[in-house]
Amino acid sequence: MATTLDPGIGEKFSRRTKRAINHDGSFNVRRRGGPHTHDPYQWLIQMNWLPFFGVLVTFFGLLNIVFAFLYMALGLDSLPGVLAPRGWWQDFLSTLFFSIQTFTSVGYGHIYPGSNGSGFVSSMEALVGVLTFALATGLLYGRFSRPSARIHFSRTAIISRRADGTPTLQFRIANQRSNILIDLQARVLLKTVNPDTSNQTYALLPLERDAISFFPLSWTLVHDITPDSPLHDLTQLDYEQLDAEILIQLKGYDDTFAQDVHSRNSYTHDEIEWNRRFIRAYEVDEDGIAVVDLDQLHLTEAL
Amino acid sequence: MATTLDPGIGEKFSRRTKRAINHDGSFNVRRRGGPHTHDPYQWLIQMNWLPFFGVLVTFFGLLNIVFAFLYMALGLDSLPGVLAPRGWWQDFLSTLFFSIQTFTSVGYGHIYPGSNGSGFVSSMEALVGVLTFALATGLLYGRFSRPSARIHFSRTAIISRRADGTPTLQFRIANQRSNILIDLQARVLLKTVNPDTSNQTYALLPLERDAISFFPLSWTLVHDITPDSPLHDLTQLDYEQLDAEILIQLKGYDDTFAQDVHSRNSYTHDEIEWNRRFIRAYEVDEDGIAVVDLDQLHLTEAL
Amino acid sequence: MATTLDPGIGEKFSRRTKRAINHDGSFNVRRRGGPHTHDPYQWLIQMNWLPFFGVLVTFFGLLNIVFAFLYMALGLDSLPGVLAPRGWWQDFLSTLFFSIQTFTSVGYGHIYPGSNGSGFVSSMEALVGVLTFALATGLLYGRFSRPSARIHFSRTAIISRRADGTPTLQFRIANQRSNILIDLQARVLLKTVNPDTSNQTYALLPLERDAISFFPLSWTLVHDITPDSPLHDLTQLDYEQLDAEILIQLKGYDDTFAQDVHSRNSYTHDEIEWNRRFIRAYEVDEDGIAVVDLDQLHLTEAL
Amino acid sequence: MATTLDPGIGEKFSRRTKRAINHDGSFNVRRRGGPHTHDPYQWLIQMNWLPFFGVLVTFFGLLNIVFAFLYMALGLDSLPGVLAPRGWWQDFLSTLFFSIQTFTSVGYGHIYPGSNGSGFVSSMEALVGVLTFALATGLLYGRFSRPSARIHFSRTAIISRRADGTPTLQFRIANQRSNILIDLQARVLLKTVNPDTSNQTYALLPLERDAISFFPLSWTLVHDITPDSPLHDLTQLDYEQLDAEILIQLKGYDDTFAQDVHSRNSYTHDEIEWNRRFIRAYEVDEDGIAVVDLDQLHLTEAL
Repeated sequence: MATTLDPGIGEKFSRRTKRAINHDGSFNVRRRGGPHTHDPYQWLIQMNWLPFFGVLVTFFGLLNIVFAFLYMALGLDSLPGVLAPRGWWQDFLSTLFFSIQTFTSVGYGHIYPGSNGSGFVSSMEALVGVLTFALATGLLYGRFSRPSARIHFSRTAIISRRADGTPTLQFRIANQRSNILIDLQARVLLKTVNPDTSNQTYALLPLERDAISFFPLSWTLVHDITPDSPLHDLTQLDYEQLDAEILIQLKGYDDTFAQDVHSRNSYTHDEIEWNRRFIRAYEVDEDGIAVVDLDQLHLTEAL
Repeated sequence: MATTLDPGIGEKFSRRTKRAINHDGSFNVRRRGGPHTHDPYQWLIQMNWLPFFGVLVTFFGLLNIVFAFLYMALGLDSLPGVLAPRGWWQDFLSTLFFSIQTFTSVGYGHIYPGSNGSGFVSSMEALVGVLTFALATGLLYGRFSRPSARIHFSRTAIISRRADGTPTLQFRIANQRSNILIDLQARVLLKTVNPDTSNQTYALLPLERDAISFFPLSWTLVHDITPDSPLHDLTQLDYEQLDAEILIQLKGYDDTFAQDVHSRNSYTHDEIEWNRRFIRAYEVDEDGIAVVDLDQLHLTEAL
Repeated sequence: MATTLDPGIGEKFSRRTKRAINHDGSFNVRRRGGPHTHDPYQWLIQMNWLPFFGVLVTFFGLLNIVFAFLYMALGLDSLPGVLAPRGWWQDFLSTLFFSIQTFTSVGYGHIYPGSNGSGFVSSMEALVGVLTFALATGLLYGRFSRPSARIHFSRTAIISRRADGTPTLQFRIANQRSNILIDLQARVLLKTVNPDTSNQTYALLPLERDAISFFPLSWTLVHDITPDSPLHDLTQLDYEQLDAEILIQLKGYDDTFAQDVHSRNSYTHDEIEWNRRFIRAYEVDEDGIAVVDLDQLHLTEAL
Repeated sequence: MATTLDPGIGEKFSRRTKRAINHDGSFNVRRRGGPHTHDPYQWLIQMNWLPFFGVLVTFFGLLNIVFAFLYMALGLDSLPGVLAPRGWWQDFLSTLFFSIQTFTSVGYGHIYPGSNGSGFVSSMEALVGVLTFALATGLLYGRFSRPSARIHFSRTAIISRRADGTPTLQFRIANQRSNILIDLQARVLLKTVNPDTSNQTYALLPLERDAISFFPLSWTLVHDITPDSPLHDLTQLDYEQLDAEILIQLKGYDDTFAQDVHSRNSYTHDEIEWNRRFIRAYEVDEDGIAVVDLDQLHLTEAL
């Protein structure tokens, strides 16, 4: 019974793949075929704020334009208060404004539905309007309240050396947010690619410490390159030829959202600096307060 | 002290039951008697979108019709702005439109409550209206934000064979959604039915790997049919006579919803193909991106 | 270093206490003193629906009465559209209706703020109104979406006997709801009270099975009264003199709410029947569907 | 491979720091540099209620003032219903009231947009208004529903003594709220500072009991100062010179919110009383109900 350390990223490939995990935690994978799954919620929740508001405004605009045309089709007579027909464009604007006043339930009333037709259409539009804003309320809340870790990673991992001479692989993280992460756990894997077959192999890189209770400062994750380590005796060239990639999985509890949050990242072989050590990224000010400098998280110096 | 592997589906039955787990993860069980539990939330949350909007529109419609009749009972005199009585139907439509304008808080005002009676009723309706839309807002959000795994299972499980000759039971899954599932765990049981007593027995089918860290690609779950396996030496006919059913329980963490999600499925004996192997369901495109084809998830070939 | 199995309910008491856990899962404990904690949310979320709507309507009513008096204090002149003063009561009703039209943002406009004073007050009221309904929306959703297990317990626990003569303590549970509970775990403790000192002692009652994967049917929880059991050799009179109470803690995952749910209950010594056995509470209908009868959950027969 | 018990608070410091954990659970750490992270949600969710409403009212006010100026820029002619220009201040007030009526979707209609310009601006304002209130709804719900433990800690920890002479470190907690916390777990660490180097060391203080199933009463956490304990043989002066701080981490499940909650606290050396014992903080009333007195949680007496 073969055992494998593949974290689910795949072992057998017909050719070389891009890095397994991007810096934003996503994978270089696409999905195709299969039953179509409507996931408008996930789509609307995950997109950026600007396109989100774009979608919202476009949707509102189209809906109101449709209703404006419906009112025009019913005739301006059915909307007392609209000034006498003054050309297509002006009539459209008048019905559009009336539509928006109905859709948002402002309903000034200087224009009002004066026929059964416009009474019915405006009633429908008012219902559609309040339900649409109910949906928008849920979406805005869902977007706002989605827990997500914002872990800041040092730009590079480093190959360093302990006082006793043991070489180590290190990288550093800090919390970009001011919230408290609790019981943060880390798991680090090495991915290597067979230069001949393009097959991928995974090996666990045990950490000096793989969990901390609190995460107010920065945390340096350290793997000792002992004779047991899969990194033992590898040269910088080996890293390159094996397309080595350090995969990192983080998991913690967010005290603000009261939910678990996850974070992923990776360092490819060209994001590893050799024979460096990290410069401390925090200091204590006059009041005895520790100050973490996120910019200094990346600072290293030659051994 | 007897131990059992019954996952909670029951062992002693008076006669044969349907499959334990349906493809949508539900069980073939009904509930009867007991204290009546009002679960309108669960009902409204779990129904499909079309009936849900049907319920919503019906509820809104009935409520407004009731209010329309209340206004008619108060007399059209109490609603200045309504044109002189023009027959029952027209009066009803006028009060209905006024009711909807009040319910949705549009309140154009060309019709308005001109008596204490209509003032009171319209005040109540306005309050009922905003609270109703508050409820609808919550329901729409609850429906939208409910986390659920959409795991795509290969249509059949297969009995395959390793290079060393070991027979294996296999099936494949992929994520239908583009979200990331983390720490996905699987548990597979064999359910057999005693042909004489209809009693059911359960046995664990250990997997080559029962958990993966990430789930961007497809995952083939493999049970080796070693001499220890409850499937050892069973022929295709045995599967049929024992009414064999492979029960699958999956559990993972959804990175979008930041919550655990679960999935269940089963393969009955006639959903198992013999002496087949899976054709790989992903390939690498020119950009080094792995492409999973959900349609190819089902593809098998003869050994 | 003394160890104890007190689940947190307390061991040393000056006199006998009521049962530790009530049938609704609450404890017989009150809190007093300490910093005052405002928990309107917990209060409004946990109360029943009828008092909740009572609170809501009372709050809306009082707020609008206050605003009505404010408008009256400003004088009816500042609200054009109100008919000439017609006595205190009629004036109050007119301003109250105007207030509610503003609060709910209906704003018909047949009465409108015609002075700076009424313009300011009505603007404030409109803002208060929309924020109040925002709050009500959140509360209604919070009440609706609160996950809670509705586990139906057999009315009594029983002392039964296995085929091999081993006496057992048993009770049965079923899910009142049609949702699926997953990975349901149970923990059962025995609480006894020292008749002389009123001190309480707790002992774990190991179960034949303490977890099930699914919970579609009923589940009979069985503790074997072996020589190791704290119940061994206890007579019915001992149960009474020791004020024996069986404490039950259940924990599972609710597939609808995607959250863990908990349930508690207890059986006091007079809720335990001796020398009985449970009659099966489910049967299989013609379609092969298992039917659980919640009323039969309580049915026992003499051994 | 060095192991450390640093819970993530840091070991090497250039000078003495303030206490590690404040009584409200926060850390004495500041963050600086790094990519700017917009966290308006966290900020708006975590601030107190008074400043929150201040932000809300300021935001609403500014927005409406901007729109009021827009309407003034369009000219009062475009808002029929506004009385003839009566000076800058009065015109501003009129447009401000109209703006608020539009923003809150009250829309009385005695003033209404009579030109394309005002029609467009008021349409935009109505949309902005409903979306703003959608956001406010989400924020109010997010604030209200955020689970948080309110654990009441005894004001001091005490050094006490068991009947057998073993010295112990103790402190007491109770739940300030009336909700039920389940499976409460505690972890206690000792932080000491090297007086010469300012370096910090951490040591686990094992507890007599580190978890309870329920938390209806008070809970006394007890660490026995055995020869193995890091506190063994330390005098009160040692505590002071080592800047000893007892760090406490609590974790439990909140039955109302159906979510895990966390709590942190610490006792510095001057918050530890020597040779005291706790007076019991609960009693049983005539009805057999245990009554916890949160004020008595702090009560100690000389040994």
